[in-house]
Amino acid sequence: MTTTRVETDSFGPLDVPSDKYWGAQTQRSLINFPIGWEKQPIAIVRALGVIKQGCAMANTALGKLPEDKGKAIQEAASEVAKGLLDDHFPLVVWQTGSGTQSNMNANEVIANRAIEMMGGVIGSKDPVHPNDHCNMGQSSNDTFPTAMHIATAMTARDVTLPGLRALHAALQAKTEEFDGIIKIGRTHTMDATPLTLAQEFSGYTHQVAMAIARVEGALPRIYELAQGGTAVGTGLNTPVGWGEMVAQNMAQITGLPFVTAPNKFEALAAHDAMVEMSGALKTAAVSLFKIANDIRLLGSGPRCGLGELMLPENEPGSSIMPGKVNPTQCEALTQVCAHVLGNDAAVGFAGSQGHFELNVYKPMMAYNVLQSMQLLGDAAQAFTDNCVTGITANRDQIDKLMRESLMLVTALAPEIGYDNATTVAKTAHKNGTTLKQEAIALGFVDEATFDKVVRPELMIGPK
Amino acid sequence: MTTTRVETDSFGPLDVPSDKYWGAQTQRSLINFPIGWEKQPIAIVRALGVIKQGCAMANTALGKLPEDKGKAIQEAASEVAKGLLDDHFPLVVWQTGSGTQSNMNANEVIANRAIEMMGGVIGSKDPVHPNDHCNMGQSSNDTFPTAMHIATAMTARDVTLPGLRALHAALQAKTEEFDGIIKIGRTHTMDATPLTLAQEFSGYTHQVAMAIARVEGALPRIYELAQGGTAVGTGLNTPVGWGEMVAQNMAQITGLPFVTAPNKFEALAAHDAMVEMSGALKTAAVSLFKIANDIRLLGSGPRCGLGELMLPENEPGSSIMPGKVNPTQCEALTQVCAHVLGNDAAVGFAGSQGHFELNVYKPMMAYNVLQSMQLLGDAAQAFTDNCVTGITANRDQIDKLMRESLMLVTALAPEIGYDNATTVAKTAHKNGTTLKQEAIALGFVDEATFDKVVRPELMIGPK
Amino acid sequence: MTTTRVETDSFGPLDVPSDKYWGAQTQRSLINFPIGWEKQPIAIVRALGVIKQGCAMANTALGKLPEDKGKAIQEAASEVAKGLLDDHFPLVVWQTGSGTQSNMNANEVIANRAIEMMGGVIGSKDPVHPNDHCNMGQSSNDTFPTAMHIATAMTARDVTLPGLRALHAALQAKTEEFDGIIKIGRTHTMDATPLTLAQEFSGYTHQVAMAIARVEGALPRIYELAQGGTAVGTGLNTPVGWGEMVAQNMAQITGLPFVTAPNKFEALAAHDAMVEMSGALKTAAVSLFKIANDIRLLGSGPRCGLGELMLPENEPGSSIMPGKVNPTQCEALTQVCAHVLGNDAAVGFAGSQGHFELNVYKPMMAYNVLQSMQLLGDAAQAFTDNCVTGITANRDQIDKLMRESLMLVTALAPEIGYDNATTVAKTAHKNGTTLKQEAIALGFVDEATFDKVVRPELMIGPK
Amino acid sequence: MTTTRVETDSFGPLDVPSDKYWGAQTQRSLINFPIGWEKQPIAIVRALGVIKQGCAMANTALGKLPEDKGKAIQEAASEVAKGLLDDHFPLVVWQTGSGTQSNMNANEVIANRAIEMMGGVIGSKDPVHPNDHCNMGQSSNDTFPTAMHIATAMTARDVTLPGLRALHAALQAKTEEFDGIIKIGRTHTMDATPLTLAQEFSGYTHQVAMAIARVEGALPRIYELAQGGTAVGTGLNTPVGWGEMVAQNMAQITGLPFVTAPNKFEALAAHDAMVEMSGALKTAAVSLFKIANDIRLLGSGPRCGLGELMLPENEPGSSIMPGKVNPTQCEALTQVCAHVLGNDAAVGFAGSQGHFELNVYKPMMAYNVLQSMQLLGDAAQAFTDNCVTGITANRDQIDKLMRESLMLVTALAPEIGYDNATTVAKTAHKNGTTLKQEAIALGFVDEATFDKVVRPELMIGPK
Repeated sequence: MTTTRVETDSFGPLDVPSDKYWGAQTQRSLINFPIGWEKQPIAIVRALGVIKQGCAMANTALGKLPEDKGKAIQEAASEVAKGLLDDHFPLVVWQTGSGTQSNMNANEVIANRAIEMMGGVIGSKDPVHPNDHCNMGQSSNDTFPTAMHIATAMTARDVTLPGLRALHAALQAKTEEFDGIIKIGRTHTMDATPLTLAQEFSGYTHQVAMAIARVEGALPRIYELAQGGTAVGTGLNTPVGWGEMVAQNMAQITGLPFVTAPNKFEALAAHDAMVEMSGALKTAAVSLFKIANDIRLLGSGPRCGLGELMLPENEPGSSIMPGKVNPTQCEALTQVCAHVLGNDAAVGFAGSQGHFELNVYKPMMAYNVLQSMQLLGDAAQAFTDNCVTGITANRDQIDKLMRESLMLVTALAPEIGYDNATTVAKTAHKNGTTLKQEAIALGFVDEATFDKVVRPELMIGPK
Repeated sequence: MTTTRVETDSFGPLDVPSDKYWGAQTQRSLINFPIGWEKQPIAIVRALGVIKQGCAMANTALGKLPEDKGKAIQEAASEVAKGLLDDHFPLVVWQTGSGTQSNMNANEVIANRAIEMMGGVIGSKDPVHPNDHCNMGQSSNDTFPTAMHIATAMTARDVTLPGLRALHAALQAKTEEFDGIIKIGRTHTMDATPLTLAQEFSGYTHQVAMAIARVEGALPRIYELAQGGTAVGTGLNTPVGWGEMVAQNMAQITGLPFVTAPNKFEALAAHDAMVEMSGALKTAAVSLFKIANDIRLLGSGPRCGLGELMLPENEPGSSIMPGKVNPTQCEALTQVCAHVLGNDAAVGFAGSQGHFELNVYKPMMAYNVLQSMQLLGDAAQAFTDNCVTGITANRDQIDKLMRESLMLVTALAPEIGYDNATTVAKTAHKNGTTLKQEAIALGFVDEATFDKVVRPELMIGPK
Repeated sequence: MTTTRVETDSFGPLDVPSDKYWGAQTQRSLINFPIGWEKQPIAIVRALGVIKQGCAMANTALGKLPEDKGKAIQEAASEVAKGLLDDHFPLVVWQTGSGTQSNMNANEVIANRAIEMMGGVIGSKDPVHPNDHCNMGQSSNDTFPTAMHIATAMTARDVTLPGLRALHAALQAKTEEFDGIIKIGRTHTMDATPLTLAQEFSGYTHQVAMAIARVEGALPRIYELAQGGTAVGTGLNTPVGWGEMVAQNMAQITGLPFVTAPNKFEALAAHDAMVEMSGALKTAAVSLFKIANDIRLLGSGPRCGLGELMLPENEPGSSIMPGKVNPTQCEALTQVCAHVLGNDAAVGFAGSQGHFELNVYKPMMAYNVLQSMQLLGDAAQAFTDNCVTGITANRDQIDKLMRESLMLVTALAPEIGYDNATTVAKTAHKNGTTLKQEAIALGFVDEATFDKVVRPELMIGPK
Repeated sequence: MTTTRVETDSFGPLDVPSDKYWGAQTQRSLINFPIGWEKQPIAIVRALGVIKQGCAMANTALGKLPEDKGKAIQEAASEVAKGLLDDHFPLVVWQTGSGTQSNMNANEVIANRAIEMMGGVIGSKDPVHPNDHCNMGQSSNDTFPTAMHIATAMTARDVTLPGLRALHAALQAKTEEFDGIIKIGRTHTMDATPLTLAQEFSGYTHQVAMAIARVEGALPRIYELAQGGTAVGTGLNTPVGWGEMVAQNMAQITGLPFVTAPNKFEALAAHDAMVEMSGALKTAAVSLFKIANDIRLLGSGPRCGLGELMLPENEPGSSIMPGKVNPTQCEALTQVCAHVLGNDAAVGFAGSQGHFELNVYKPMMAYNVLQSMQLLGDAAQAFTDNCVTGITANRDQIDKLMRESLMLVTALAPEIGYDNATTVAKTAHKNGTTLKQEAIALGFVDEATFDKVVRPELMIGPK
């Protein structure tokens, strides 16, 4: 980084590291925004590559870009899309709210790389100009929201949904494995009527199935791309049909069903689709939180907790307590879930703050949604691999607790009435005795009837 | 309220006002939970009526309830469903987290009303018992979440969606009315390229169309009812097929497509469907906030603001500044929207906090979601009636501002390049001159070309 | 309500119910804002009475109001302050964001009541005019934020702090009562080294002590009143020294240390003091949530949970499970706490949304903060009275669990090293044996040493 | 990274890169938690160095650590504290909720570095053991919350408060610079009575002064350190007085007034002090949002907005619109502020979720609070340097708008009454005339009176 070259923009010349492709506007952003440690997510960088490639394809096909320039831009952009030039995107999240500087970062890098390919002088803007050629028919105002949507869709496909699907499969497998294990139910954290461990896990499984469905359900609005709206949504400086054409190109590059947004004014000035997706992620986080929290409480102990589940032991749990093992995967996951709820609050707030033709919270919204997606996908996968898959049922403990429950009395209520059944349970509780002892002693049933009616295996479904 | 009668539950006798149908458990709740000023929403009370009616229909049909008792319960429950007994539901939101006491409030009121119809003594539990008969085959744990879903679906149909649809229609009408009015666009709150006022309003219209779609899109999970899960989701003490049967009855009573929930364990222990709906409402609030905020800024003035829109004058605006008129409907709506975002945060948190077989944040979650729905529906309707419908365009001001904009230079960029166009705009800005003067003076174009290219009416779409 | 009289404002005449003191602007607000079910909090109404009384005192003293009018206004305002005229304040929260209409509601009611006292014709504005006399030297823009602060300070004094202090005293009493009861500690929900139940409760006690300190710590900014800023903060149409004078009057009326705000521009355009208070309430809610959640888990059972605490039984817990008793006060309190977190999110958002000289989210911010204060105070009191005071320790269960814990091995670590101690614990866990058996069998200690070192009563503090 | 050595923990051996000091538990964490892209904040790493240094000082002084080991540990820890070993801390945020693995990361790095200093074999745990020596008298459960507080206090001192103080000074300077510039006030975004630009900026200045005071006001609870509580708060395995001693050492190392926490049970099981600090940061964010939002709206234009302020031009604003300049610093700052509100929601949620003796959301809470602090400090500084300092008043535009305002009529109200003044304003508005014309035409005042009363320079304060 000791050698530099001079790059220029309309504000003047600036020194840029010689070994980087970026130009003056990127460098200027580094100077003007020394804020925080959060870089633009790599998924945004790659998505900008997809966009620049797709737009250059259209411009070349339409004859607006000469073949040679068009090809060079496409190839350079493709390198960005494939992650070969990640190191040339140094900007932070906290910049212009339209993401203009990250769009220009892409334009500058691709222009210089294309110039290099064509044998020109890097920094000369000749034969490829970052604005006139790389940004042809584009504005940051439509490009950056397009990048947000492409990055979101790719992260959903590649990280979030795979993680959730792995978790769903593992919970489904446990549901099958735990069939027939009858256990105490707990409502209000208090003893309740029995159910099977499989039934309990079927609830978790269903929650994750719905989490997947909710994320998938928000994708159709994400597949709608702003590209073609240019500066304010009108499509100024684009040819008719351009939005459709570039959406098709990007769909082809990514293999995802992108289409052009039906209303470009909305697509620039609001990011309701991102808010909606954040809501789906939030709901998924709520589901996962409940599951992970239950699992750690059911696995609490080993000797002084509920102890119904045994979780895999993955690492030493304490720097001071020898032999301690903790439900660390539950902890990582619940931390992630709580964080996702915070992100969702931030995204909703920011989404409401558009003014006129533009919402200028784009990088921050993208950062939050993409972080939520990455974290949920990763944490669901780690939780699956390092916890759920290895959970076993502590059958002795489960059976012991279930048989002690006073709530088995509920099976008696249709026989002897709610009020009498209450007397049985309260008396047994007070005396530390069994339901059977008290039900007979109180004269409400005989032993045979009790034994016929109060059978946990008959209490786990309608009859 | 001076006279009382004695009612009893398993904790003993209590004095209850003679002119109320409620019983001991309701009265006990009044004593134990003197918290806040928020009553159970009336929509929950009515939904409990629907449930008790639907369940009694099934119990009578199945021969589990004698005809006479069954009929009396159905009739009394129907009175609750129709709002005839609202005054007999005094409980607050902040009670047992399963809503047990509000379920018992319904059981007690319906039992006493049915007893009255059948000529019995109120408070005697004879011939109709609140638990054994009114609650037959039910638990608070499945009844209250069913009430949450029914209340949510009815409020969506009766309040939220009508309000949003009215707003959508009004914005659509304005979009048509404002066709052809070319105005300055604004991005980053700064002057940008032009668009029509119709295009600007089309963005708002699309946002509301999507808000409607999002709320509708969350309803299918709301139509799934927990009823039939009883205490822990197993359906203990119900006959086979009961869940399907009562869901069908409730669908018939309400005219809404209710079905039985596919997994009752999830339906009791989590309220992800409510979290999802809250996310949809939050997204709608984000959309409405942006619209209302834009409208007040576009209508700011009358002399020292943007002044492009004229909003209806509805009331005196200031107690000290004579003649002041304010965008008060925008203010009511944006306050509502900000409040809905807070509700959504509360709902997400609460939704994550289920333990084992039950989430015990039910009344609080219902309160927040129903409040958000009521407020969004009401505020959208008031905003429509008292603001949007009466908005007029201040055509003189719109035209004057648009013609002054330096951003019309964007049309020149494809002709003379981005860098030269920048010089034109910057020079005109510095000198306080027009683009045309500077473009010609700088030698980039002649007058004829300028006049041909820089035409706002050609800048509002692709070409 | 069948008879009406005509009242007028600058928008024209309106029919108003004859038995109400309010005037045309109040009536107009009822028509224009049919939104939701949330009335202006009664604390706001009373605070408006305090303000009007304090201002009339100053205006009379300064000779700006004739003695007779001044006295009548003071007396009428005092009736509002004392709650005698609550029924004459029908407006909802969701109105003009400056609270203008509630300020005018106060002006109209007080004017008509003063007119009545002076023998005039209600509705005639003679001899007392709602604007010229009741609102003299005032604007809604300084009056409503003053009402927000007065209502907040009074609610803190009368509801929130008493509730928290009662809880603190009850927890402190339990801390003393539970001294010497050694129990298993739990970290990560897993067995850990022991502590006393008193130590555990001392943590709760300290949390509540700090919650009180945090709310008290936010009050000094609440004691600063906007009154005197009038329309935009300049104090136009007030005499010099007016702000100080009326703050002093309001301090005298309420007995609270109100002072005039040091910067009136900030006091109108931002409500950072309310955001700060909301943050303190949120922190208190976080503390109470943790306490209530712990208490229900420690009290879980009675037979299949942790069972270390026995909570008071207050009401039947289940409509289907006879004899069930639930930690309902914990549930009411945790619901309140989760709700307060939502309110805090709403308040922060709204607080950020001031434009220029005014924040127009005043009624909504006041509603949320006052609701949080009322709910926390009420719920803390109910939780104290109906739960904490009656908690008893289940000493047998506590002792039994504690003696089984493998984490007592921690006391051995300084003797035999962390790695060997780990081997002891893991072996005992694997074999289902005791630490002592394995520590000796593995040859790390002899029996005497073990008995000397591994003593729970020596593990509850430094040595 | 191609060469590795073997490190071991109680779970067995693992390959670790040869050029890193970390050990088996760190390596195991990398394997078990492949979640997200967020590393433990560097401030936490440095704080762990401070702790290990401070504890080794105490252990050496007490004779518990031999001199040579003690010195080596202190020196190695000091290198961590100074940031010399940052590269040896690879762990992510999303790990064990107690931060055990980051604590062990510090223990392992310091042990190996100390071994190296003493001529031992890295990885041998001899002569320095990560648990027995580096972690002596410590548990992750007290160490990590201590690190949270130290990191928070240092970031407040080094980043957040300097940024806020710089902004305060710049706003104060503008307040002085803008003295005497009379401008239109705006309430409800509508024209209101005048004030000076200095008065407007004085409100901003006061907000930032209070933001500083709020952050400072939360620090005393941050200065309280959990160290000495060890595993569950009892201080097991520490000597009497240890907490005080190590707090003093850490105070000495950092120059910050750290003390030992008065209740260690609270300090491990809850992080209310962090929640409180987050609330202060949230309130600061709310203040900064309002300021930045105002400034961009007041600077909107240059030709079609309010145009009262001229903001510095820092970079090209648009990739498509030549010559466009945007309020990008306002955008970066408002994005940061919205993000901080999301972080606050996450922190509050997580803070409520402690179970029994431990809150296991420690790394996530620390990450959110430290990120908020860094972002607010950095963004305030950038906003100061690149925006506030260079703001100039557009005096022509300010004067032109102010003179057109109809709200100057307010000065007439005390003369002619509110209702007549209303008629003047409304008539002028309708006719597009001046107040003076209409006030005279309507016969309410003569010209001399009007000119004497309606003078903006007399309307900017009490009189």
